[in-house]
Amino acid sequence: MMNASGSPVRQSSVRAHNLALVLQTVANSADQPSRAAIAASTGLTRATVSALVDDLIEGGLLVELEPAPRTGAGRPAAGLALAPDGPAGLGLEINVDYLAACVVDLTGAVRHRLVARADQRLLSPEAALAELGRLAAQARAAATIDGLTLAGAALAVPGLVTPDGLVRVAPNLGWQDVDAAQALRKVPALADLPVAVDNEANLAALGELRADHGGEPTFLYVSGEVGIGAGIVLDGELYRGGRGWSGEIGHVTVFPDGRPCRCGANGCLEQYAGQEAMAADADLAAAALGIALAAVVNLLDIDQIVLGGGYAPGFDRLRPGIEAELRRRVLTAELAPVTLRPATLGADAAMRGAADAVIRGVRDNPAAWSGRLG
Amino acid sequence: MMNASGSPVRQSSVRAHNLALVLQTVANSADQPSRAAIAASTGLTRATVSALVDDLIEGGLLVELEPAPRTGAGRPAAGLALAPDGPAGLGLEINVDYLAACVVDLTGAVRHRLVARADQRLLSPEAALAELGRLAAQARAAATIDGLTLAGAALAVPGLVTPDGLVRVAPNLGWQDVDAAQALRKVPALADLPVAVDNEANLAALGELRADHGGEPTFLYVSGEVGIGAGIVLDGELYRGGRGWSGEIGHVTVFPDGRPCRCGANGCLEQYAGQEAMAADADLAAAALGIALAAVVNLLDIDQIVLGGGYAPGFDRLRPGIEAELRRRVLTAELAPVTLRPATLGADAAMRGAADAVIRGVRDNPAAWSGRLG
Repeated sequence: MMNASGSPVRQSSVRAHNLALVLQTVANSADQPSRAAIAASTGLTRATVSALVDDLIEGGLLVELEPAPRTGAGRPAAGLALAPDGPAGLGLEINVDYLAACVVDLTGAVRHRLVARADQRLLSPEAALAELGRLAAQARAAATIDGLTLAGAALAVPGLVTPDGLVRVAPNLGWQDVDAAQALRKVPALADLPVAVDNEANLAALGELRADHGGEPTFLYVSGEVGIGAGIVLDGELYRGGRGWSGEIGHVTVFPDGRPCRCGANGCLEQYAGQEAMAADADLAAAALGIALAAVVNLLDIDQIVLGGGYAPGFDRLRPGIEAELRRRVLTAELAPVTLRPATLGADAAMRGAADAVIRGVRDNPAAWSGRLG
Repeated sequence: MMNASGSPVRQSSVRAHNLALVLQTVANSADQPSRAAIAASTGLTRATVSALVDDLIEGGLLVELEPAPRTGAGRPAAGLALAPDGPAGLGLEINVDYLAACVVDLTGAVRHRLVARADQRLLSPEAALAELGRLAAQARAAATIDGLTLAGAALAVPGLVTPDGLVRVAPNLGWQDVDAAQALRKVPALADLPVAVDNEANLAALGELRADHGGEPTFLYVSGEVGIGAGIVLDGELYRGGRGWSGEIGHVTVFPDGRPCRCGANGCLEQYAGQEAMAADADLAAAALGIALAAVVNLLDIDQIVLGGGYAPGFDRLRPGIEAELRRRVLTAELAPVTLRPATLGADAAMRGAADAVIRGVRDNPAAWSGRLG
């Protein structure tokens, strides 16, 4: 076997690739496939599949289900499924008015969910992160009681984050240059875990992308909290931008001489359609959202918009006002209608997306997850 | 040799690939490489390179230059260059207040340039396209006198175009569902040529991309005529959007209750920063442009903006006003400055980009260009 650059592929990387292939095949199956069915769909030999499946079972990633009762001739095959008690992901979220943590197992099921409502603007970043650390420790303890092993943690933050977990700016939290990844690594209950930090709208969009089983979708995910962020998914890939700071729709100008924003500008979308503003005037919020979303559609020719975070429960209230502005302001409105829908994962999309990012890391590279598979 | 799908590659496609490789190597060289230098940089054998070079010379795509006078020992090698008298591209443009045609040879040099200023809004689409056909016929006649052979034509239009050359809407021309490709194919002087039609800002952005030799740039190209369009280049690729209708920055709302636009909305950018509005109030034009460009930067995290079309000559006048709005309205303005620059190809970018698209087609697939190479 040769790879694209023409040099031989090492045996160990072939094995890692095939382990992932078998695991993905089980994950993407509508039913519980047998070893023979996996061999048929992957093109690997039955002997190879069996050895890989044994490794994945031993590593706690797959379980073998009891064969169904015999109904005809022949021995019924045992089916394989993702292990519900194997590795799990810890999803964390810090937002303006709440902290949250969830534990999601390898099958994608939410096993624990903890939300602590409190205005984080009243706390220093250190105090807020310490509080989040306590919530994370509770979630980990609950996961341990269930027999789950955390593979890592990911934190969703409403701000601009660098790839190494530094929050450069989170205007609505009042944060500037806060090393959130380092702060969480100092929490004793998390000290042994890899910790990632990402923008909340990006994580929510990734969660939404993975909940969507339809090929390579293009959509804009909009997360409406006190601030507003967006994740841009183009042809099945999150578009992060040059520095990873794309999607700042909350600071798109809707009324140039309008209300002052915490960012220093005037008339930013989030001053009209952020959660606090929306509670005061939902009609204005929907119109302002419609104006900003029309700009996105005119610029990117995107025909699917997903409203998440606080917008998911308020979807029906907002929809007519947004659609009226889209009809009026999108140049192609008559040629190609834009579809609006609430987020599949609802208000939890960001923390679910964070936990999901951990789980996907295990699914994409099961060989790296466990020394037992190495 | 095997391709990615594991089936053997046919000899004819290997040859086509290698012809393109040799031609690109000459095109991308700073000097005129010898056959030996091409062999060294491509990894092909000298015999293979020589046979391919002979075919490309015979096909009119390469020329062999006289060796430089002997200065030392040994025989000086002949250098190879793109043929200036081989295939050429016909670039056409129809805009609100002018028609234009240019002939660009294989080396990228503009050999002929014809511009006819007249308000196209006063003509029917049929009459405007017939006029453009006459200009195209003049350009072709001039190219023929030069010994050039047109490889194809491409037309730049300020509107929404389908892949088969139908102009769905061009609001500033007042066009709706005009089959521009078919109309041009009916012009006798063009009847034997492949004709492509594309959005003018997209073609200009592609022209700008090819004039930029710095790897895989990300930039927004903004074309300011009576209407305003944009081409979005992400990591070296034009982002066209789901239906090819991205970049409609002219219809991004800047003042929600502002001036009525031909598209039916109010407060569209082009009502403040289109060429006619800009002539009336350049300060307001720059502010409106700055507001819309800040939205693009906030959404896409793009740090390079190229102003073309009518904005290229007016660049110095517009720059301070645009930059003031970007500083005020881009969330990351202090973390990552945005660079503004005029288009390298100036006001001709769209028709140059159109001609360039034809030339690139030949460069990318020289085997298809000429039966003599087949």
